[in-house]
Amino acid sequence: MKALVYQGTRDVRVMEMPDAKIERPTDVLVRITATNICGSDLHMYEGRTDMESGRILGHENLGEVVEVGNAVDRIKVGDRVCLPFNIGCGFCKNCERGLTGFCLIANPGFAGAAYGFAGMGPYSGGQAEYLRVPYADFNCLKLPPDAEEKENDYVMLSDVFPTGYHATELAGVRPGETVVIYGAGPVGLMAAHSAAIKGASKIMVVDSHKDRLALAEKVGAIAIDDSDGSCVEQILELTKGKGADRGCECVGFQCYDHHHHEVPNLTMNNLVKTVRASGGIGVVGVFIAEDPGAKDKLAKQGQLAFDFGQFWMKGQHIATGQANVKAYNRQLRDLIEAGKANPSFIVSHELSLDQALQLPRPPAPHLNIKFLARTVG
Amino acid sequence: MKALVYQGTRDVRVMEMPDAKIERPTDVLVRITATNICGSDLHMYEGRTDMESGRILGHENLGEVVEVGNAVDRIKVGDRVCLPFNIGCGFCKNCERGLTGFCLIANPGFAGAAYGFAGMGPYSGGQAEYLRVPYADFNCLKLPPDAEEKENDYVMLSDVFPTGYHATELAGVRPGETVVIYGAGPVGLMAAHSAAIKGASKIMVVDSHKDRLALAEKVGAIAIDDSDGSCVEQILELTKGKGADRGCECVGFQCYDHHHHEVPNLTMNNLVKTVRASGGIGVVGVFIAEDPGAKDKLAKQGQLAFDFGQFWMKGQHIATGQANVKAYNRQLRDLIEAGKANPSFIVSHELSLDQALQLPRPPAPHLNIKFLARTVG
Amino acid sequence: MKALVYQGTRDVRVMEMPDAKIERPTDVLVRITATNICGSDLHMYEGRTDMESGRILGHENLGEVVEVGNAVDRIKVGDRVCLPFNIGCGFCKNCERGLTGFCLIANPGFAGAAYGFAGMGPYSGGQAEYLRVPYADFNCLKLPPDAEEKENDYVMLSDVFPTGYHATELAGVRPGETVVIYGAGPVGLMAAHSAAIKGASKIMVVDSHKDRLALAEKVGAIAIDDSDGSCVEQILELTKGKGADRGCECVGFQCYDHHHHEVPNLTMNNLVKTVRASGGIGVVGVFIAEDPGAKDKLAKQGQLAFDFGQFWMKGQHIATGQANVKAYNRQLRDLIEAGKANPSFIVSHELSLDQALQLPRPPAPHLNIKFLARTVG
Amino acid sequence: MKALVYQGTRDVRVMEMPDAKIERPTDVLVRITATNICGSDLHMYEGRTDMESGRILGHENLGEVVEVGNAVDRIKVGDRVCLPFNIGCGFCKNCERGLTGFCLIANPGFAGAAYGFAGMGPYSGGQAEYLRVPYADFNCLKLPPDAEEKENDYVMLSDVFPTGYHATELAGVRPGETVVIYGAGPVGLMAAHSAAIKGASKIMVVDSHKDRLALAEKVGAIAIDDSDGSCVEQILELTKGKGADRGCECVGFQCYDHHHHEVPNLTMNNLVKTVRASGGIGVVGVFIAEDPGAKDKLAKQGQLAFDFGQFWMKGQHIATGQANVKAYNRQLRDLIEAGKANPSFIVSHELSLDQALQLPRPPAPHLNIKFLARTVG
Repeated sequence: MKALVYQGTRDVRVMEMPDAKIERPTDVLVRITATNICGSDLHMYEGRTDMESGRILGHENLGEVVEVGNAVDRIKVGDRVCLPFNIGCGFCKNCERGLTGFCLIANPGFAGAAYGFAGMGPYSGGQAEYLRVPYADFNCLKLPPDAEEKENDYVMLSDVFPTGYHATELAGVRPGETVVIYGAGPVGLMAAHSAAIKGASKIMVVDSHKDRLALAEKVGAIAIDDSDGSCVEQILELTKGKGADRGCECVGFQCYDHHHHEVPNLTMNNLVKTVRASGGIGVVGVFIAEDPGAKDKLAKQGQLAFDFGQFWMKGQHIATGQANVKAYNRQLRDLIEAGKANPSFIVSHELSLDQALQLPRPPAPHLNIKFLARTVG
Repeated sequence: MKALVYQGTRDVRVMEMPDAKIERPTDVLVRITATNICGSDLHMYEGRTDMESGRILGHENLGEVVEVGNAVDRIKVGDRVCLPFNIGCGFCKNCERGLTGFCLIANPGFAGAAYGFAGMGPYSGGQAEYLRVPYADFNCLKLPPDAEEKENDYVMLSDVFPTGYHATELAGVRPGETVVIYGAGPVGLMAAHSAAIKGASKIMVVDSHKDRLALAEKVGAIAIDDSDGSCVEQILELTKGKGADRGCECVGFQCYDHHHHEVPNLTMNNLVKTVRASGGIGVVGVFIAEDPGAKDKLAKQGQLAFDFGQFWMKGQHIATGQANVKAYNRQLRDLIEAGKANPSFIVSHELSLDQALQLPRPPAPHLNIKFLARTVG
Repeated sequence: MKALVYQGTRDVRVMEMPDAKIERPTDVLVRITATNICGSDLHMYEGRTDMESGRILGHENLGEVVEVGNAVDRIKVGDRVCLPFNIGCGFCKNCERGLTGFCLIANPGFAGAAYGFAGMGPYSGGQAEYLRVPYADFNCLKLPPDAEEKENDYVMLSDVFPTGYHATELAGVRPGETVVIYGAGPVGLMAAHSAAIKGASKIMVVDSHKDRLALAEKVGAIAIDDSDGSCVEQILELTKGKGADRGCECVGFQCYDHHHHEVPNLTMNNLVKTVRASGGIGVVGVFIAEDPGAKDKLAKQGQLAFDFGQFWMKGQHIATGQANVKAYNRQLRDLIEAGKANPSFIVSHELSLDQALQLPRPPAPHLNIKFLARTVG
Repeated sequence: MKALVYQGTRDVRVMEMPDAKIERPTDVLVRITATNICGSDLHMYEGRTDMESGRILGHENLGEVVEVGNAVDRIKVGDRVCLPFNIGCGFCKNCERGLTGFCLIANPGFAGAAYGFAGMGPYSGGQAEYLRVPYADFNCLKLPPDAEEKENDYVMLSDVFPTGYHATELAGVRPGETVVIYGAGPVGLMAAHSAAIKGASKIMVVDSHKDRLALAEKVGAIAIDDSDGSCVEQILELTKGKGADRGCECVGFQCYDHHHHEVPNLTMNNLVKTVRASGGIGVVGVFIAEDPGAKDKLAKQGQLAFDFGQFWMKGQHIATGQANVKAYNRQLRDLIEAGKANPSFIVSHELSLDQALQLPRPPAPHLNIKFLARTVG
């Protein structure tokens, strides 16, 4: 089958690979019809991870079931399914509490597994014609009859929509509250969309790229243009000096200030400043335990110079981590079907798998807008 | 009246002061019968705060109501009451949600007020014969008939018992879970006592002072002696390499390693290492927004070199801040009355107010065991 | 001052009464500018309660502060405020946990107090020129600068909007879930509006009056016309036979079937049938402990023939009671100010206080659409 | 193999049956070493259900794994495991949220499956030498090294301990609260044990059998002897007239008053009377949707004459249903291992499978004390 294969830093190729196949009785095989490229794919592409050469990328996948293992119960050939990027077993201590992003079984020795992802187990990705899906009864989300028509919406259920939603859950957003979201990339935009769905009264989105901010405004958010470094003042003014009730971190460890310098602690410390005393902060932007390529000495060791004193004095709380996609994807699917969520507004490119290499390379740091790399089928 | 007055760094005196009195119709006047000295008093005593000279210390207070303002409804002369160290108005956005440690009214411009405390408003402390209690209907906890007999227990409801309990709430301790508590000072011991009350299956308490660890064992905890710096290994071994479900920080910014060096980020980074993926961490040890007297450059600005990458990869969460005493003091009082909690086991000295100056000075860093400075009355 | 006074069954009069005035230092005096008539007012009007003659009605009140007691801190003369219908003290065990509908102090011997309400304490109502507001710092909700312009929206914060919202809280509505609401009266419509704000994926509203159902559709709900008694079948069909995730009871004890017979257990048993196994049910329609005027023998004693067996087999849960208005009114106010909630769509009549008697009398059972009885000022 | 087989009303026999075996790749086979008889077994025995003749009874099972299906991942031959009485698939909407008592897949068309149970699917029971366990990776709870030594404790994890614990969860018991528990049978005693583990300040257990009440006192509860029908007065006196914070129903539909008459609504209405306003009630005693054998007309249809008016006025909440065993069994296992829970104190008889028929028959209504029917192996 054709697949997009990582060959080393800044080297990915569309090439023939052995067909994906059923390996265990609990597997199903899915013919991929839509898959996204994620900011995390760029981390691997740029060589800031220890991704192995020869592996197929792609963890945001949707398609049609073409074969099922003999222990599979619920999923049938012909079902249209969306696959959470994180692979759960369904029966470990974490999975059974809904913490499917921290499965203790699927990737032994580490809490968490994923398709085509550095450090997340041996699973191949879905930027390919076919994908093997382990623990399929647990991992497949069945799609409703309008699955094809709204494919661009439903494919977002694999990662970016639940991840943005997760940011608002970790922060504790409740109806009527104010929220500040750092980052208007795909995840930040999904966080803004999620906060609107949850009935936030005021949603402020911080970025310095005007095109992204325009998208944020489309989902009802107030754009905070930080191209002059004034975001803290703007947010405090919009919240009568008190800060927002909740804050979402949707940037991650590669955070730039308005002079285009990488300042790893900038977003987190701004969040402490711009969230109210006793408020909540949700962090879904990726931070990594070691970053040998970083310039900053602390960052090399995965540390931030964090304003812990102010954080404590304000009695804030922070929750972190990758989204437990299965905790949210049923409800978000139902919102898409009901026409009350439309996450596909972030799609910027629609390409076939063959065309995947035609993306501008290297992608500019601000060009991680989601797109659909459709397979050749 | 007689009172213990802060006169400057390492200078406190018992002296005559003007009598406390009713100032507003919602006040009551309390004759103090028991009051504790807290680790925070030592921060002020040692000059690491901007405490004003001439102020009466004492934020852990219990006594008898001797006069009530004409707008007071619920509290009567003769009631025995314990006063939460933090003063709440009862009607601001935070107080009405139970966040009484972050009252927006009692200390305008800052979220939080307290008796006899640097930076927490103009209120006098209770290491004195009498104390003025503002918003008395809201702030007074009425004590049951055994108030005198169990005074050493009930006085702990003013701060240290709810603060230890708060650590377990912030961490999210549930029955059957494992908990690691850093610090076996009074707050850490109260956290251990609280975790036991909540039905934790395994409680590990880290310290390097054997006398404190012995007290931890008395409440059913496993003592983790860190005098050789091996606490991380010990905890991982006791939790099959996974870390505890929950962790409590009961040390604060003045954290020492086993070589007796101040290492401000030691406890927090050890917590990240020794709490399981997706686990919770509660931080009640005091961290401050600026610490000009610190040696560490980051610490001067209130920053920690925090293992944020590992924290994020593990999907942990941290909640912080001073205890909202009123959120817990009714239930903890009922546990004392029922004989199911006995926090007085941490009392090391019982002195009259006149004797307060006879404490060893300066108290060694590990000598912040609670004691009762009884008033002369 | 002029006021609407209850004189006995089906006898209310606008008459001169002694001016409301400050009675305790924690009171304020409010000049009423808008007040609603509630379904509960009709219960009293129709003589199904033990309301005392001579009392002023009106528990949904909004106005301007004209005088403040000398212990009042936060509220100032000139503030525009909306008053929760239930009066809380702010410092009892229930109020301090946000259960202000069950205050233990304001109406001694009973959990709960209100203005101008049978059995809820001695407080006069606000269908009058002036209203005395007790525990004013706790009870007054300050309104923003657009208070006059959006008065019809903000006055709904006194009762009907928080009560509808409470139904969705009691039922546990979460984003993406399906909800069935019984009753498209003002409370049911507010429940539908609240469910939409919270991001429910499908909202079904049951009633048999087409005008009300049309209003339900205006807020995005699916109208379930029960004029042929088929609501259970309709709801099961819309939920693939499983029932809705959540159900709201917004009808109360005077429940009629499609033959116009009073069938007290109809709504509750339909809820059990049409909510899914393990789903939640919120009950805000009023049920009373005794109803001597009822025809049904069980109803006389305040009992229902409830399908407890099916309820238990399905593992459902029910939560009940009057709304704790203060638990929600800040956030709902902020949603009105932000233009994200507009509860005034239920207003059917706007009358001056003098005109209040011109309403059709007796109001037909289905005519409890809210209206604003504006004062003469 | 030998097994206890239901042959019709009051007719069970120990007889040879075909060996249990692996039927699907996700099954394991367990050699039973301990199993309990439950009150629900008596419902079947007495013919008040539609149990089919020829089926093997027994839903409280513990044993050793002797064979595993080829899709089983986590469970190995030789593992000692305890099986939740309710069978979950692990991947339906309910199971993945922890509602394993309401599995939508294991027993198609009904929410919930169990071993050897009327109406809960085709699964054989474990009062036999061997048991087939479906979805074994999900359903098996692995036991620690002391599994044999504490077998009488661990077998309680299959049903009665989690069910008693569930009552306290449904009621919302928090540390320091007061709890009233109706019924001192095995489930009620487990609820009392659970409330003690959770740190309740006062636990009151209502029954009229002195031997059971004595066991309740052993776990720290206050015995409320209702043999004179005075339980309501006793509880109100112990709670200063306010009622308990929380109430647990551990009796079910066969409820007797002190004159030994079956009064189906007695317990529920007493709970409404003896739980405080805004308090919570958890119902784990079994109620059934139809009871043709009942004398009471309402009971025949599964209805109760419930004090709904008082329930609503008090703003209480009720949660119901069989326990989701997997939601609790890990933590409760850890408490047993740590020596902090010892549910085996309710064991009254230890018999081999052959001796099972030697129990007094018919068991008196009050004799549903748990016992261990050990297998012949």
